[in-house]
Amino acid sequence: MDFFDRLKAAAHDDWQSYVDHDFVRMMGEGTLPHDAFKAYLVQDYLFLIQFSRAYALAAYKGRTLQDIKAAQDTMAAILNEMNLHLRLCERWGLSAADVEATEEHNSNIAYTRYVLDCGMSGDLLDLHVALIPCVIGYGEIAKSLAPNGPDALGDHPYREWIGEYAGEGYLAAAAGARANLDRLAQRGVSDERFAELVKIFARASRLEAGFWQMGLDLGHEAKLA
Amino acid sequence: MDFFDRLKAAAHDDWQSYVDHDFVRMMGEGTLPHDAFKAYLVQDYLFLIQFSRAYALAAYKGRTLQDIKAAQDTMAAILNEMNLHLRLCERWGLSAADVEATEEHNSNIAYTRYVLDCGMSGDLLDLHVALIPCVIGYGEIAKSLAPNGPDALGDHPYREWIGEYAGEGYLAAAAGARANLDRLAQRGVSDERFAELVKIFARASRLEAGFWQMGLDLGHEAKLA
Amino acid sequence: MDFFDRLKAAAHDDWQSYVDHDFVRMMGEGTLPHDAFKAYLVQDYLFLIQFSRAYALAAYKGRTLQDIKAAQDTMAAILNEMNLHLRLCERWGLSAADVEATEEHNSNIAYTRYVLDCGMSGDLLDLHVALIPCVIGYGEIAKSLAPNGPDALGDHPYREWIGEYAGEGYLAAAAGARANLDRLAQRGVSDERFAELVKIFARASRLEAGFWQMGLDLGHEAKLA
Amino acid sequence: MDFFDRLKAAAHDDWQSYVDHDFVRMMGEGTLPHDAFKAYLVQDYLFLIQFSRAYALAAYKGRTLQDIKAAQDTMAAILNEMNLHLRLCERWGLSAADVEATEEHNSNIAYTRYVLDCGMSGDLLDLHVALIPCVIGYGEIAKSLAPNGPDALGDHPYREWIGEYAGEGYLAAAAGARANLDRLAQRGVSDERFAELVKIFARASRLEAGFWQMGLDLGHEAKLA
Repeated sequence: MDFFDRLKAAAHDDWQSYVDHDFVRMMGEGTLPHDAFKAYLVQDYLFLIQFSRAYALAAYKGRTLQDIKAAQDTMAAILNEMNLHLRLCERWGLSAADVEATEEHNSNIAYTRYVLDCGMSGDLLDLHVALIPCVIGYGEIAKSLAPNGPDALGDHPYREWIGEYAGEGYLAAAAGARANLDRLAQRGVSDERFAELVKIFARASRLEAGFWQMGLDLGHEAKLA
Repeated sequence: MDFFDRLKAAAHDDWQSYVDHDFVRMMGEGTLPHDAFKAYLVQDYLFLIQFSRAYALAAYKGRTLQDIKAAQDTMAAILNEMNLHLRLCERWGLSAADVEATEEHNSNIAYTRYVLDCGMSGDLLDLHVALIPCVIGYGEIAKSLAPNGPDALGDHPYREWIGEYAGEGYLAAAAGARANLDRLAQRGVSDERFAELVKIFARASRLEAGFWQMGLDLGHEAKLA
Repeated sequence: MDFFDRLKAAAHDDWQSYVDHDFVRMMGEGTLPHDAFKAYLVQDYLFLIQFSRAYALAAYKGRTLQDIKAAQDTMAAILNEMNLHLRLCERWGLSAADVEATEEHNSNIAYTRYVLDCGMSGDLLDLHVALIPCVIGYGEIAKSLAPNGPDALGDHPYREWIGEYAGEGYLAAAAGARANLDRLAQRGVSDERFAELVKIFARASRLEAGFWQMGLDLGHEAKLA
Repeated sequence: MDFFDRLKAAAHDDWQSYVDHDFVRMMGEGTLPHDAFKAYLVQDYLFLIQFSRAYALAAYKGRTLQDIKAAQDTMAAILNEMNLHLRLCERWGLSAADVEATEEHNSNIAYTRYVLDCGMSGDLLDLHVALIPCVIGYGEIAKSLAPNGPDALGDHPYREWIGEYAGEGYLAAAAGARANLDRLAQRGVSDERFAELVKIFARASRLEAGFWQMGLDLGHEAKLA
């Protein structure tokens, strides 16, 4: 059991509330309203801007050149991941400027600023524990929605999203983040410290669940409007 | 028009959504369900822990001994303000340990971590603009709910809360914070910079409105439970 | 052996270069030129401004109300310690404004900004390890210079300084900081992590030695001028 | 007069103490002892590790995606600049690991941690004002040492260093940093604020001068050893 698995086992219910959220299930079934997906994706783009700041923070906190370079590589990967969002948004008639002018939803603010504060007030391990539900969860979710691989998804409405996160590139990056977390945990984690980290992991998982719920709520509002 | 008034005028609707929130109106009329008030107050205690961290951040960011001392004085005032909360909570059978063990609500996380991030990523003016809706708004609200002074409130159910924030001690501290904001703004605020600060002020006001709404929602949940 | 003793043993030579510095020996013998002491004390006042920022940072990084309050208490103690400096400076005809207008020496900048950076880029333990050579060293030095207690110092020229740091108030605060360090280390310190912390402790000790050297150098320059 | 020129004019003597330092003059004449250059270059490599952290901090502090990307580009440029150092060090039989294991000199710590603290406690403008003497100064110095262009340097012993910083790539990056500083200053700089920024600029220039002096001192020590 690596460090990620220990955290997941210790915060099982919170983790499940995130990876088994209705939004995920409906996305898999293809029944997720398009408005919900669209609202989610726009917010996720804004989320990734803050996530790139979180990896900049990781670089700032690096103790070795190797740490700094690793964080910078992840920043570059995130900025690349955002092209998926812009490509989809442009297809819907939304420019990058439109997306960036959208107001961040409270659920988005809560999650991103919580991660940044964990990282600033704690150490690199706190920061990476706060980031990891997102990094690994998206891969796990996408793989579960494409059990036969992305190519077997046919004309699934959310094929592009699923394919991105079930793709080899993303999964390799997630595996790297998982190994890095394990390495940081080698620096020493007492039971008291583990309890603190579980609290961060559980909260970040719930904030991810809240992010999916925001998608459903915004989609519902858009339908009523 | 001092700097606070310029911000309030520029973000009028957001400010009104906060100071005129249903929670406030119902508290004034004495019709606010006790469960809503109680849930709010417990969260507000957790909020003040983070707020004391925000003033610690202000001390860290101080350029002069005077700045550092001023921030430290405010930290002390906040820790004092928290005694009101503990006194009320103890009356309801909640110890300080019970309150501190309560999970922070997402609306609480969103607001507090947003303020901390503004302060860490920006400068002292950004930090104080993010803090000011809370500091001045509570005084304005309390005064409007006690137009003839706290002593005329008789056996109003929320007399203690209103009395705290409409009291001379609190209002003097708020006036000091307002003057300090004005002083910081003298350091130079272009139109572009003012627009940024209005965005922070407007968002903080909406996050305050969200904090009241959280109180109503938690009160409703408690009633249903 | 508590955590402080483990650090001191692991960085023995660096620690000795600080507590056995010529400046210390000459202060004890009463042969330290007054200009050196004066230059040191003015810089030390500027140093304490940055040190109060470091404890503000500790408060910001607090995970519990108890941590936050403890850091705030230390901030208050530092601001109190600075009165010794102002009292002596005023006797020499230097006002607080004169002292605050003095340019920080590079050795002062190196030490204080290193501590602040350790604390910001690391966690609370990194911060306190960087602070502890100052906190405990001053007490050890003062006790060694007043083996029969401060009252036996007679008309020793540096009696006031020695008395401050060999006094019960200061020594109790230093013992508290030492216990706090031990408590933080309980959160888990692997061998790899211990090596990192020794590096910080050793460097902070050398930067303290550099601070004494600055006093001698500035005293020498003043004599030549 | 752009913002950089205003700062330089206001801190003329400090700027001159840096760009006209003996180290610079001796490097230009080719009389700088090789040991001094070598010691400087090893320290400069360690300096650039901290400088890449400073640009990571700039990315963290970015308010827009454009700001974040610009800072990340500079991080990449710095990591590239470090190859010059490694190339030269390897020629002298020093591996990257040897260089990274070298203890940072106090003058190095003073400068880098001062910049990081300016950036963390202030805003982006404070950070960039602290960084700019290095960024622009190196270009100005290198151009002055190669008045007829780097190609005319023949077998000058420091041709590679001069060529790097007098090269088009470096000068274009420096011009970009200069324009960025100007853009940030548009956000509003009162006279009081300008005085603060001049203080930072002046101090950073003196810390650069101290960095050259460190090179001469270390070279002298190496000769005596």
